[in-house]
Amino acid sequence: MIDATTITAANAAADAALRADYDALGDHLARRGIDIATIKDKVAAYGIAIPSWGVGTGGTRFARFPGVGEPANVFDKLDDCGVIHQLTGATPRVSLHIPWDDADPADLLAKAEETGLAFDAMNSNTFQDQPGQAHSYKYGSLSHSDAATRAQAVEHNLYCIELGQKIGSKALTIWVGDGSNFPGQSNFTRQFERYLGSAKEVYAGLPDDWRLLTEHKMFEPAFYSTVVQDWGTNYMIAQELGPQAQCLVDLGHHAPNVNIEMIVARLIQFGKLGGFHFNDSKYGDDDLDTASIDPYRLFLVFNELVEAEGTPDFDPAHMLDQSHNVTDPIESLMNSAMEVQRAYAQALLVDREALAGFQDGNDALMASETLKAAFRTDVTPILKMARLEKGAAIDPVAAYRQSGYRAAVAETRPVSDGSGGGIV
Amino acid sequence: MIDATTITAANAAADAALRADYDALGDHLARRGIDIATIKDKVAAYGIAIPSWGVGTGGTRFARFPGVGEPANVFDKLDDCGVIHQLTGATPRVSLHIPWDDADPADLLAKAEETGLAFDAMNSNTFQDQPGQAHSYKYGSLSHSDAATRAQAVEHNLYCIELGQKIGSKALTIWVGDGSNFPGQSNFTRQFERYLGSAKEVYAGLPDDWRLLTEHKMFEPAFYSTVVQDWGTNYMIAQELGPQAQCLVDLGHHAPNVNIEMIVARLIQFGKLGGFHFNDSKYGDDDLDTASIDPYRLFLVFNELVEAEGTPDFDPAHMLDQSHNVTDPIESLMNSAMEVQRAYAQALLVDREALAGFQDGNDALMASETLKAAFRTDVTPILKMARLEKGAAIDPVAAYRQSGYRAAVAETRPVSDGSGGGIV
Amino acid sequence: MIDATTITAANAAADAALRADYDALGDHLARRGIDIATIKDKVAAYGIAIPSWGVGTGGTRFARFPGVGEPANVFDKLDDCGVIHQLTGATPRVSLHIPWDDADPADLLAKAEETGLAFDAMNSNTFQDQPGQAHSYKYGSLSHSDAATRAQAVEHNLYCIELGQKIGSKALTIWVGDGSNFPGQSNFTRQFERYLGSAKEVYAGLPDDWRLLTEHKMFEPAFYSTVVQDWGTNYMIAQELGPQAQCLVDLGHHAPNVNIEMIVARLIQFGKLGGFHFNDSKYGDDDLDTASIDPYRLFLVFNELVEAEGTPDFDPAHMLDQSHNVTDPIESLMNSAMEVQRAYAQALLVDREALAGFQDGNDALMASETLKAAFRTDVTPILKMARLEKGAAIDPVAAYRQSGYRAAVAETRPVSDGSGGGIV
Amino acid sequence: MIDATTITAANAAADAALRADYDALGDHLARRGIDIATIKDKVAAYGIAIPSWGVGTGGTRFARFPGVGEPANVFDKLDDCGVIHQLTGATPRVSLHIPWDDADPADLLAKAEETGLAFDAMNSNTFQDQPGQAHSYKYGSLSHSDAATRAQAVEHNLYCIELGQKIGSKALTIWVGDGSNFPGQSNFTRQFERYLGSAKEVYAGLPDDWRLLTEHKMFEPAFYSTVVQDWGTNYMIAQELGPQAQCLVDLGHHAPNVNIEMIVARLIQFGKLGGFHFNDSKYGDDDLDTASIDPYRLFLVFNELVEAEGTPDFDPAHMLDQSHNVTDPIESLMNSAMEVQRAYAQALLVDREALAGFQDGNDALMASETLKAAFRTDVTPILKMARLEKGAAIDPVAAYRQSGYRAAVAETRPVSDGSGGGIV
Repeated sequence: MIDATTITAANAAADAALRADYDALGDHLARRGIDIATIKDKVAAYGIAIPSWGVGTGGTRFARFPGVGEPANVFDKLDDCGVIHQLTGATPRVSLHIPWDDADPADLLAKAEETGLAFDAMNSNTFQDQPGQAHSYKYGSLSHSDAATRAQAVEHNLYCIELGQKIGSKALTIWVGDGSNFPGQSNFTRQFERYLGSAKEVYAGLPDDWRLLTEHKMFEPAFYSTVVQDWGTNYMIAQELGPQAQCLVDLGHHAPNVNIEMIVARLIQFGKLGGFHFNDSKYGDDDLDTASIDPYRLFLVFNELVEAEGTPDFDPAHMLDQSHNVTDPIESLMNSAMEVQRAYAQALLVDREALAGFQDGNDALMASETLKAAFRTDVTPILKMARLEKGAAIDPVAAYRQSGYRAAVAETRPVSDGSGGGIV
Repeated sequence: MIDATTITAANAAADAALRADYDALGDHLARRGIDIATIKDKVAAYGIAIPSWGVGTGGTRFARFPGVGEPANVFDKLDDCGVIHQLTGATPRVSLHIPWDDADPADLLAKAEETGLAFDAMNSNTFQDQPGQAHSYKYGSLSHSDAATRAQAVEHNLYCIELGQKIGSKALTIWVGDGSNFPGQSNFTRQFERYLGSAKEVYAGLPDDWRLLTEHKMFEPAFYSTVVQDWGTNYMIAQELGPQAQCLVDLGHHAPNVNIEMIVARLIQFGKLGGFHFNDSKYGDDDLDTASIDPYRLFLVFNELVEAEGTPDFDPAHMLDQSHNVTDPIESLMNSAMEVQRAYAQALLVDREALAGFQDGNDALMASETLKAAFRTDVTPILKMARLEKGAAIDPVAAYRQSGYRAAVAETRPVSDGSGGGIV
Repeated sequence: MIDATTITAANAAADAALRADYDALGDHLARRGIDIATIKDKVAAYGIAIPSWGVGTGGTRFARFPGVGEPANVFDKLDDCGVIHQLTGATPRVSLHIPWDDADPADLLAKAEETGLAFDAMNSNTFQDQPGQAHSYKYGSLSHSDAATRAQAVEHNLYCIELGQKIGSKALTIWVGDGSNFPGQSNFTRQFERYLGSAKEVYAGLPDDWRLLTEHKMFEPAFYSTVVQDWGTNYMIAQELGPQAQCLVDLGHHAPNVNIEMIVARLIQFGKLGGFHFNDSKYGDDDLDTASIDPYRLFLVFNELVEAEGTPDFDPAHMLDQSHNVTDPIESLMNSAMEVQRAYAQALLVDREALAGFQDGNDALMASETLKAAFRTDVTPILKMARLEKGAAIDPVAAYRQSGYRAAVAETRPVSDGSGGGIV
Repeated sequence: MIDATTITAANAAADAALRADYDALGDHLARRGIDIATIKDKVAAYGIAIPSWGVGTGGTRFARFPGVGEPANVFDKLDDCGVIHQLTGATPRVSLHIPWDDADPADLLAKAEETGLAFDAMNSNTFQDQPGQAHSYKYGSLSHSDAATRAQAVEHNLYCIELGQKIGSKALTIWVGDGSNFPGQSNFTRQFERYLGSAKEVYAGLPDDWRLLTEHKMFEPAFYSTVVQDWGTNYMIAQELGPQAQCLVDLGHHAPNVNIEMIVARLIQFGKLGGFHFNDSKYGDDDLDTASIDPYRLFLVFNELVEAEGTPDFDPAHMLDQSHNVTDPIESLMNSAMEVQRAYAQALLVDREALAGFQDGNDALMASETLKAAFRTDVTPILKMARLEKGAAIDPVAAYRQSGYRAAVAETRPVSDGSGGGIV
């Protein structure tokens, strides 16, 4: 963890400017009929999960260029996640990936307590082969044509649930790489039947207070078809499995031009929105930092989420899922968590009564402007004040750099191997 | 109609070459264990519907460049459709669009008998305003925020059913332009609830032996969101309405790169594939001639359809839906009907037993080659022989050009107005 | 024009809040080392051209739903454009489209003086046929296979130059619909040679102080290929023609996912960026209101433009080009002009020295944050103050609605015909 | 190499059927005025290069699933390439990638003679870091902001030329991963200036009879911008460098929906088409087997190449570039080489005189049909006969499977490590 005095000193230097900005924004919002403190409190209460694998440097199939001080195991990762939460106050939970993060539950719980974190959804991995594994996932896992391979994949998912129960997780997220690279390689229908059969076995092992989140993806690692290719198939899965099954939306997993916020709305309407993997993309599953490419799109997603607040049983899981290839992962995750908070704060500013009126009256221009007025508002002072008040850093990246954390861990952690591509 | 002697003479000239090609193909297929006559009979029994609006020259929002002899009304259109069927033997049904084709049912039936045609699905139009209409569809129809506008759109659909019943149709196809052009313009959820409410009213008016086919489309004429944007929403609609509701797939209505044949498979698997609008596209809803851009994709769709043959209650409607901007529409429709037959014939050649074996054994290369072997086969002689045997033309376009049909109708039909964009 | 007292009264009511916001922003910017008045003065000096055709309601190939009080001719259009400039102070020039706007030059100049406007680039139209035209553009214009058709298209462009010279224009913009709908329909090379030949004839008729701006577009109205399909071909054209030829970038004319700001940078670097048609899009050439879909993308374009300020001979033309299907065109154009100003103002706030340092040091995160810090700043008070100081409206849409302008013109202008598609 | 008796025996069994098919096709083509032997001879003379890295199993950033008997070094790779050429007679050259394939030139030449192969273009690698390398390519290579890093990358390219000269290569292909992952990370203009500066240094080291081929790519491994993002920038590079510089087109490196055959035509027209990396794709740079997804698109590319035959100095390099993730790479490369031959043979069948007539007369339908008639022709017997006559296998995949080659090399080659992603 970072020495608290580093944070305190940095905050002290930024305090006066923040208060001036905050007060000015408060006055401005008051003129719009909005109480800034209410917004700030909502933002302060908001938290997003960090994926354990996000704190390592990512890569592509072409190369991976590691940084210094890469985490060598789940405990290093939890240390890094703890720093992120310490500085932002926005990331209270970590999502583990098994077997990468497999460890003694007692040790995991101890480390979580030490770092001030809790555990979010568990993630299974049947898109890679592990040493000593009996059956290969080269041609699929839950949907493999071979029953023994499917059973192995089911068994692994049940193990993830078992481990998760011991560390306080309440959800299992399943993403598979199953698909095909050639027309004809797989029979779409039989493959999907096998997937559903396996998924039902996993679902049967779900504790009553758990959710099963399935994730769709258009392509990659399969390049002609994927078994859960879009939200339509994902929705079918959630329907077939039952009420504890819901759909997870990763912002980078859709076809070009797709209106993602509309998919979010549809899944909410039919009770099947389970959660998000937040990131940004320009071309494919680029896994770029959230809101780095299209911040308005993120806002529009949050506009749907705020619109749905209060819907019974509406509680989607929020998680970042990014690949940090050219930045310090800790910095990117801090920034991205703040970007998600920003979109949430902006969405809270939408004048929903006015919006509904413009929608009913087909005043497209003013409806658009109503969203834009909220989006344009620079809510940075609200985010900063929420952090300051909870002892986090006004400017987390600056404080992090001042702390020397990365250089310090670089001295104790082994040098990471740059060979091979990068897994995220 | 075209003088039968024109066809007979043209066929006579092409007969010898056809028989040589047909026999050689028969020998080749026999070596692959396939009986050519069986394939030919299936092709001969196959028919696809023509959209009445397809025989007029299409256009874009920028311009429409009409040809000579454009049909002036539904009876002219039926004449043109009759010629298409006479020459190809492949298009026994016509799909009407109301109010464009509204007419006395007795007159329609008489013209159908004269031209040797029957009536396919009825199409309603709530994407344009008609003179004297009480409520405008500028901001939507079945999903409009105004109840009276929705009621007007429902009423129009019920009228289409009523008219269709009198002329032997068994299905209503609904495509709406409803959507929005700005984020915020419409509340996705309330808009979809209104759509479902209206659609249920139409569904309630459906005779027991009818189907309701709904069509999804990613964009255009709405450019930010459309209410039935993809097959996921379309599937929700079909589920909400009931067993007589199914999804219609227009090949040009998807996001870039989307795997359409997989959507077809999913809808078949869940009993909700209602039919097709065949065309081709490179960029958007280009409405180009079927198989003119990507013939293998069309084959892959038919591969799914042949795979599903024999599934209980599986009977999707097949129709062309194209915009002919630079060709004689009659020629394009004849060619496109033959391209659909071609894809069907190729799909019939797939060695399904071998394919299933390669799929189960994860022999991706041979599975791909099994499809390719069928696709590569030049089935033209089969198509020609099927036409010859039913008295149609071996080469429909050549026979049509020889017949002088277009020049003849140009003398009696009024000159079409080139102003405005083109509706298809 | 709108009664000045309407504007004055509206401004008076909004004055106090504006001054509070402006002062607070000034204080904030001062802390960032930025003088707000400098930014405001630059924004105030910025102007963007309005396309004459933009003040009419647009449409699609499916339908056009006109509003009331549609302009019936170029003089009505100039009245509407005058109102836009009166209220925003941001649109001092109008771009005419011939033959739609053909009129006596003296009358055009008189109307321009009356409305306080000047004339921007001339636009030719060889994508539609006009009554009485000798040769049809159905199969192309400047690249048509027939020499007489090409000559007719060249002649029309020369006429546009001639007319433009009389009314003070200094540029000709050429966009053609030439292309093909089928593989094989056109020989790409011969077609492009013909295009270049025709374009050279037009270029030869260009006055010394004029520019020729050519516009690329991926598709529509041609749906398999277009002769100037992308910036690469556009750049070839500008090179072949000579120094007065430059490329025009319409934001909606690119393939999905394309990085447009990078194209802008490349064209600047090689001296060939001629200008812009601003709009926004989600799917294709949607012609939506500028910045309504992706405001950050617009900012990134302006980031390149501000970066290039001071480059010798760098003077790109700025114009809006949108299709207003569901809004009052005057309102959309006012809003869009302000959105362009907003992006310009935000781009002016970028700390370019810091940015260059982060770029040289490969500090990707801080480089990104440097742009984001500028983009996040709500520059609305700067825009409003610039308007207030020049006698325009603080809130142009509100003032416009209060003025009753649309209702007034609706009484004198003929009712527009809703038939046909919409041309933009 | 494979025992010749295996091939002879397999060919003997397939001989009779082949002769029947070949004769029937010859008769058919004769009726179309085409001499089958002429086509066969052209196909027999055609050769395509194999990338050395293609014989290893590829992978994605998520995983790599190696097969048995993976080549461990360049000599193993040349053995595999030798088998491919032995069985197909279509792949006489191999393209090396340095430093992966770095070795003593004498040893390389000896192995090439042993396997009956020659060396095609050299490929440099500045998208990965090598052990002991002074400067990292994490933030770029030829365009890096640091001069020493750029110099290192230039030096590496010069080394590739030097090595290539010793083994008979005549071209250097440069593909870099340089780009950015965040807006703002790189200054587009300065980055491209640095790229051009470095490329000029490499160009200066080019022997007089060599070509420099530069490759554009839209995205990956950089996900916001790449320095050579499209053919427009690639064309600028070739212009800036000089007459020995030309553009290389990889079919999978374009934006969605882009008309690639048109780009090919443009580059031919302006003398800058340097060569191809053939593969196929559905979503991005999927590197799937050539023609496995869209065989008509490949045909349309070859249609341009055959159209340009005879153009002075027109001699593009042809190479496969695929990632074989689920197949035996040898099988995929054999099949893909044959698919390229197939497209070439089909393109040779186009009736170009008729086509030109339809193009000049704007008979779009018949122009399309003219291409389709060529594409539909099953030229398999021509390809098989060409192979048979040169002692290769009628059915290379079958002969390869019968030979037991893979099992044999699996006994002597080390087991490949499945960890990490896959590089292609």
